[in-house]
Amino acid sequence: MANPSLLILPGDGIGPEVMAQVTRIIDWFGEKRDLAFDVEHDLVGGAAYDKHGTPLHDDTMARALEVDAVLLGAVGGPKYDDLDFSVKPERGLLRLRKEMDLFSNLRPAQCFDALADFSSLKKDIVAGLDIMIVRELTSGVYFGEPRGIFEEGNERVGINTQRYTESEIERVARSAFELARRRSSKVCSMEKANVMESGILWREVTQRVRDAEYPDIELSHMYADNGAMQLVRAPKQFDVIVTDNLFGDILSDCAAMLTGSLGMLPSASLGAPNADGRPKALYEPVHGSAPDIAGQGKANPIACILSFAMALRYSFDQGEEAARLEKAVETALADGARTPDLMGPEDGTPITTKEMGDAILKAL
Amino acid sequence: MANPSLLILPGDGIGPEVMAQVTRIIDWFGEKRDLAFDVEHDLVGGAAYDKHGTPLHDDTMARALEVDAVLLGAVGGPKYDDLDFSVKPERGLLRLRKEMDLFSNLRPAQCFDALADFSSLKKDIVAGLDIMIVRELTSGVYFGEPRGIFEEGNERVGINTQRYTESEIERVARSAFELARRRSSKVCSMEKANVMESGILWREVTQRVRDAEYPDIELSHMYADNGAMQLVRAPKQFDVIVTDNLFGDILSDCAAMLTGSLGMLPSASLGAPNADGRPKALYEPVHGSAPDIAGQGKANPIACILSFAMALRYSFDQGEEAARLEKAVETALADGARTPDLMGPEDGTPITTKEMGDAILKAL
Ligand SMILES: CC(C)[C@H](C(=O)O)[C@@H](O)C(=O)O
Ligand SMILES: CC(C)[C@H](C(=O)O)[C@@H](O)C(=O)O
Repeated sequence: MANPSLLILPGDGIGPEVMAQVTRIIDWFGEKRDLAFDVEHDLVGGAAYDKHGTPLHDDTMARALEVDAVLLGAVGGPKYDDLDFSVKPERGLLRLRKEMDLFSNLRPAQCFDALADFSSLKKDIVAGLDIMIVRELTSGVYFGEPRGIFEEGNERVGINTQRYTESEIERVARSAFELARRRSSKVCSMEKANVMESGILWREVTQRVRDAEYPDIELSHMYADNGAMQLVRAPKQFDVIVTDNLFGDILSDCAAMLTGSLGMLPSASLGAPNADGRPKALYEPVHGSAPDIAGQGKANPIACILSFAMALRYSFDQGEEAARLEKAVETALADGARTPDLMGPEDGTPITTKEMGDAILKAL
Repeated sequence: MANPSLLILPGDGIGPEVMAQVTRIIDWFGEKRDLAFDVEHDLVGGAAYDKHGTPLHDDTMARALEVDAVLLGAVGGPKYDDLDFSVKPERGLLRLRKEMDLFSNLRPAQCFDALADFSSLKKDIVAGLDIMIVRELTSGVYFGEPRGIFEEGNERVGINTQRYTESEIERVARSAFELARRRSSKVCSMEKANVMESGILWREVTQRVRDAEYPDIELSHMYADNGAMQLVRAPKQFDVIVTDNLFGDILSDCAAMLTGSLGMLPSASLGAPNADGRPKALYEPVHGSAPDIAGQGKANPIACILSFAMALRYSFDQGEEAARLEKAVETALADGARTPDLMGPEDGTPITTKEMGDAILKAL
């Protein structure tokens, strides 16, 4: 049987250096666990723009649709700030999400014990925190039409459209409820139904899917502004949160930062299952391209490595191997491996991106 | 000369009980400081719906446009959850904002020394925090057309429109820059220009107004998701933040919760200046209607009282009297006056809403 295929898109900023460590881990699984992947590398974001004049070449897009999973580093950077909207690095990532139809974005906000002290929140508020945010990723204001900057009278007007169909809401709701069944069976849905009709439909449809198909799930609804407050006040009240593309963008970043573990958090973006039962899937760290520290060996590769662990679990049904990798990360941390983001100013000398890779390989 | 006029709209939930304390304070200013107001009371939100079948009666709207300032408590509650969108309590508030053209919503996120321990954040992260969020309040996705729930093929679709004209962005930017001149001359503007064209226009116009009219202001730009992160990570990096209606809703609630002082935070919503130089204005606490504790004497009236202090300052040019009132609040707190929200579980017996009013009146 052919090896499963992986497309690796390191992207911009710290993307390439964290991905270099993931590649070493992938090789290890091929050599030591008889779990070999056919790996291809390609460009996305600013890196693709620099070479091809577009943040995602059509050939790359085509390959992304063919492979079993895509692993992405990060996109964007100040170098590209003045580019036209249509070729900004982010458009490459958004095109992947849209054309792969990755409607369900799983973003864990998890506080690692060893790092609870790094949160700006009090330790008792975040220790043991383990939330999963399910963000709708292919619709809403990110993709709705009409959009653009238009002339109107003697001035310009900037327009975007928030837009959700019932079936778009249904499928992401289902994915949240399925996930909740494997956790605590509790889901909180967030929108602004008090202000937006799209939020009213969101609330109605999530409730209807729950009532018809998931009566075992406890579903609550919360306005997104209150959601932001409650995340800061008492995040442990949540288990699974389901929300739209734009609220999900903001709330998941807020939740990620609560944990103090931003450099540790992976994410999975999943589409509908293929004929073979595998969902189309893209895995990427929650953190961005961090251009300020790029190329200096300061980046923490763990978020990207744990994204590969998520790939093992969700795309390749290798839950045990995923757990093995996650365990190795924990062991490396317990043994004191710390990149700069995991240290206070008085905590001694941090290790480099590559040394963190070494530590995790050693633990494996 | 006629007394300045105030329209008081207590609204729903804890609105009436906190407003009752404000009324006592207003009376005190009339009796002791020769600063009498012509005060009218009326209904808004669910309370107006219960009586008139609409969350804001036309007569109330007309009076709001005539008086010198409006003071509002809070609107909304679960009792009204199933009402049709068009008569939800929130529509009353939104109509006031829109028809009074209150485009600039000032939301301080300030950490009171005595309360820094109540934040879920570490004390050193929030002690002394003093941010002002300027939220655009009359446009964006809150009011953009088309909007609604429509049939499309054989399903429904929920649609809202994010929409900003250049002049809408200009005027709120100016109001942020003016405010910044009286503070640290530093403004951070937040949008999603990497994803939304309306954000691109927002970024371009705020920068242009800064360059042409406010070269003394230091203006930076940040994506709103990063803004949420940075607010949690290191909020003191900010002074004035300017952002749109929806981002402002979420980010200001997040910022307010950081301070641990939610029951303490007032807000002002200002429109264009009238012939007499006074802006149209509405003042309200940042907190909501808190239906769970309504009618029990547990609510903290300070946010609403400080909203009246903002009215003294921004609508009536009574900066000294505003400071007198703010000082009295501080004194009451320093003397140990604490409603339940300002206490830990082991901190003894809290006082009631009315007793907090007593304590502040005594300090005056
Ligand atoms: C890079 C950007 C387009 C993206 C988004 O807004 O979705 C990022 O913030 C994210 O959350 O993955
Ligand atoms: C009550 C609601 C309509 C309102 C809003 O969304 O603007 C509230 O959340 C606020 O921030 O004042």
